[in-house]
Amino acid sequence: MTSAMILIKLGGSVITDKSQYRKFNREQTARLCKEIAAADRNVMIVHGAGSFGHVLAKKYSLNAGLQDFIQVPAMAQVQHDTRELSLLVTEELMKAGIPAVSVPPGSCFVMENGRLMVNDTEAIRQLAHVGVMPVLFGDVVADRNRGFGICSGDQAMEAIAIIFKPEKIVFVSDVDGLYTADPKKDPDAKLIPEVDASMLDKVDSELTVADVTGGIRGKIEEMLRMCDGSRECVLINGTVPGRLESFLKDEEVVCTRVRP
Amino acid sequence: MTSAMILIKLGGSVITDKSQYRKFNREQTARLCKEIAAADRNVMIVHGAGSFGHVLAKKYSLNAGLQDFIQVPAMAQVQHDTRELSLLVTEELMKAGIPAVSVPPGSCFVMENGRLMVNDTEAIRQLAHVGVMPVLFGDVVADRNRGFGICSGDQAMEAIAIIFKPEKIVFVSDVDGLYTADPKKDPDAKLIPEVDASMLDKVDSELTVADVTGGIRGKIEEMLRMCDGSRECVLINGTVPGRLESFLKDEEVVCTRVRP
Repeated sequence: MTSAMILIKLGGSVITDKSQYRKFNREQTARLCKEIAAADRNVMIVHGAGSFGHVLAKKYSLNAGLQDFIQVPAMAQVQHDTRELSLLVTEELMKAGIPAVSVPPGSCFVMENGRLMVNDTEAIRQLAHVGVMPVLFGDVVADRNRGFGICSGDQAMEAIAIIFKPEKIVFVSDVDGLYTADPKKDPDAKLIPEVDASMLDKVDSELTVADVTGGIRGKIEEMLRMCDGSRECVLINGTVPGRLESFLKDEEVVCTRVRP
Repeated sequence: MTSAMILIKLGGSVITDKSQYRKFNREQTARLCKEIAAADRNVMIVHGAGSFGHVLAKKYSLNAGLQDFIQVPAMAQVQHDTRELSLLVTEELMKAGIPAVSVPPGSCFVMENGRLMVNDTEAIRQLAHVGVMPVLFGDVVADRNRGFGICSGDQAMEAIAIIFKPEKIVFVSDVDGLYTADPKKDPDAKLIPEVDASMLDKVDSELTVADVTGGIRGKIEEMLRMCDGSRECVLINGTVPGRLESFLKDEEVVCTRVRP
């Protein structure tokens, strides 16, 4: 095991079926956990909420904060569901030989106007210190001003990045990377192996009609924010067996690298 | 709903079968949650770990702290199991109409030489403020000096008592209260309806051979510690249908009251 830390986000699109409420992709998650274990690197893992979070959160507009008391039981239900997903993920990590514990952001942090406040991090640091990987995830979190809000998996990533200062950040998603156009609609769409902020502007103008890549554009913007200093951020397809493991072993793989 | 807060501990002996690893008493837990909802009082709930915690914790001597690295995956497994139990409990609370969220002590607190450090409590307070009951439980928690340690359900109770200052504390167990002798062996054993520290000394001398009440004696000692000022602590049998609900409705019930 090398000491340079790699922070891995297992996206909601790879560990769940986003089209079905509370549908866990157990086989794919198990394979990814085994790939991470096999690569034997110093890693931290965060995961998205996928269909354990977004379906109900959207139905009850939880992202808007407290507006009606009908949202309160919905908030509790989403917190329950995301905790359940997290136990399914940590169970697969443990089966792969990685001692891991689910750490719900809503249990240790609050938000302020939608921004996650990363204050007391000692429990998370001490868990890692004793050898149990703290696994954060997308969650509903109490908000000082709005009652509650959504802490996305990417915001949980930022919290872990603040605490552990990883050298690389890997976003594991269900696409090969950023394309010049929607690859599902345009046979001429080309994968962009490397982007920076200036290229993103160019890609954007060519992609105004391709809604499906809006999520990818948002992801790249998020990654650019996290690429402070010398840190490399990579977007990789976790649905392709072996690709994550290859990347972790410093082999050449299909991906989009984001440079600061 | 009256504003005086009542803190309820659902003991591991009522929500689990302590003789079987990871055996949840779903029906009994569901009934107790319904009784709590029906009483409609201002309550907070903490629960024990029962057979989701004690079996493996004992096998791997987790209470002794880190002594061998084989304990690390065991720590992760116990944390997983107690989180799973907690989701089973909060699920029953939600079914009974009480929005609740599992808050693992190991996610937000650390210990110091076995003592739970209750530092940043804002997430717990804000969850309660927005109307979702934070439910703490017995858990394995990182320890600054010992690597990790066991945070008992009773220690989690003390944390909640510090934060929310309840007026009454109810320990829901599987016995009617404290007896003059082991009721399972001695037909003349009498329930003691009210104890204070001086009576405990007297009871103790009469009970030197009754092992089964050792746990109860420890519980009473714990309760005496929590009875600071005017706070009343009660030990009640949760296996008797309706008893908890009656108590919460201020009706006369069989129990042992501990006076400071």
